[in-house]
Amino acid sequence: MIIIGEKLNGSVPSVKEAIKARNEQFIYDLAVRQAKAGAHYLDVCAGTNPEDEADTLVWMMDIVQDAVKVPLCIDSPNVRVIAKVFKNAKIPGIINSVSAEGEKCEVIFPLIEGTDWKVIALTCDNAGIPADSEKRTEITRSIVEKALKHSISPDRIFVDPLVTALSTDNTSLLKFIETLRYVKEIYPTIKVTSGLSNISFGMPLRKIINQNFLALALYNGMDSAIMDPLNRDLRATILACEALLGRDRLCRKWFDAYRKKLIG
Amino acid sequence: MIIIGEKLNGSVPSVKEAIKARNEQFIYDLAVRQAKAGAHYLDVCAGTNPEDEADTLVWMMDIVQDAVKVPLCIDSPNVRVIAKVFKNAKIPGIINSVSAEGEKCEVIFPLIEGTDWKVIALTCDNAGIPADSEKRTEITRSIVEKALKHSISPDRIFVDPLVTALSTDNTSLLKFIETLRYVKEIYPTIKVTSGLSNISFGMPLRKIINQNFLALALYNGMDSAIMDPLNRDLRATILACEALLGRDRLCRKWFDAYRKKLIG
Repeated sequence: MIIIGEKLNGSVPSVKEAIKARNEQFIYDLAVRQAKAGAHYLDVCAGTNPEDEADTLVWMMDIVQDAVKVPLCIDSPNVRVIAKVFKNAKIPGIINSVSAEGEKCEVIFPLIEGTDWKVIALTCDNAGIPADSEKRTEITRSIVEKALKHSISPDRIFVDPLVTALSTDNTSLLKFIETLRYVKEIYPTIKVTSGLSNISFGMPLRKIINQNFLALALYNGMDSAIMDPLNRDLRATILACEALLGRDRLCRKWFDAYRKKLIG
Repeated sequence: MIIIGEKLNGSVPSVKEAIKARNEQFIYDLAVRQAKAGAHYLDVCAGTNPEDEADTLVWMMDIVQDAVKVPLCIDSPNVRVIAKVFKNAKIPGIINSVSAEGEKCEVIFPLIEGTDWKVIALTCDNAGIPADSEKRTEITRSIVEKALKHSISPDRIFVDPLVTALSTDNTSLLKFIETLRYVKEIYPTIKVTSGLSNISFGMPLRKIINQNFLALALYNGMDSAIMDPLNRDLRATILACEALLGRDRLCRKWFDAYRKKLIG
């Protein structure tokens, strides 16, 4: 499981506060804690007003890269902002994100052509998020085809099938799994990622739904999650499922995490 | 999910104590609490020395049948004991269990022929528990064939593939799922059941492993579990997975369980 640490996000009140106060230590610590907890990438999202966004992102990127060696996941709804701050990254990470909407692919793909950068591809287009898996797969195909023109191979693409709320669509997980299977059938090396909290929107005891979503998605081949790496329950779910799926020889990782008090 | 409540078992210290003291109230309460928590069957197991076993079982059965309307799951390693106490059951339940070992099928099948009784079939024989799924499936087939001679159809059989400890066999869950698929392919109406705690034997934080085993087994079509129906975490896992699998229209059961404070 490739873990993309989600905590450095300006839409989180405490992070918003830290950004406003230019509290370097807060950002630094949050980067270190997520890296120590096993994050493979650290998402950075300014979440501020458009005028300040690029400056804020560069400020965050500098602090995070000072704090840890973990690559960044540069996160903005505006691909022009990503293009602007891109050169401040010291090592290749992930672009978050493109979709079939507007000029996103056209701005990002030339930027990461010939590099080791990866990219998250959301399965939506100008018409929004399609209800069915077939259309989501079609969108994935159109994005991959554009990527291939820039020599960006499918293994560098993390498809996010944009899981919807279970409370309004009871087939939400089933559609997610279906989309995952369709896109992996076409592009066996493509990666699938997802946030873990949209699924439980509008429901009580969200964390239990999120945990079980994670277990079932992981079982079905989800490669990555955009999540809070400091969440002990989610970490335990990942390690338990990896052991159950025979991916943890002699359950060593499980015993090790227990001894280090990282789970339970 | 068909829940077989496991708490009335003489191998549990508090139950052993109650049996020794012939504490009717204790047995009565444990029956009522499990039934209220949603158990579809109540397992009764004396767990005493062989001489007392039949008497103890009859004593337990009488109390439980006084307390609740939930059918029994008569549990003994000795099929002669089951045969002896069988007539004390007021309504059809489940026999726990037969296997391909010794005379088990030969004693139990004539007993439940022409009734609505169901039976748990363990996938072991005189040589013990086979390591591979193919042999477990073969054992299932041999048991079903014997059952058919007594007009006991596969839908009355709960196969228990006898999950082994993950700590000693990293492919334990995978073998369980494989066996489940094999037997359901041959007998589509057969049911699969399992205890939830063997999987985590020898590991720390067993309940997390057990919960994730339950989620993944349920996803793969396990029909039933022999479990503690009073365990709120397991109940939440079942309800969360049923919602995620689209089996809980508008997530009503989830909201309902939350409102009644049965989960969380």
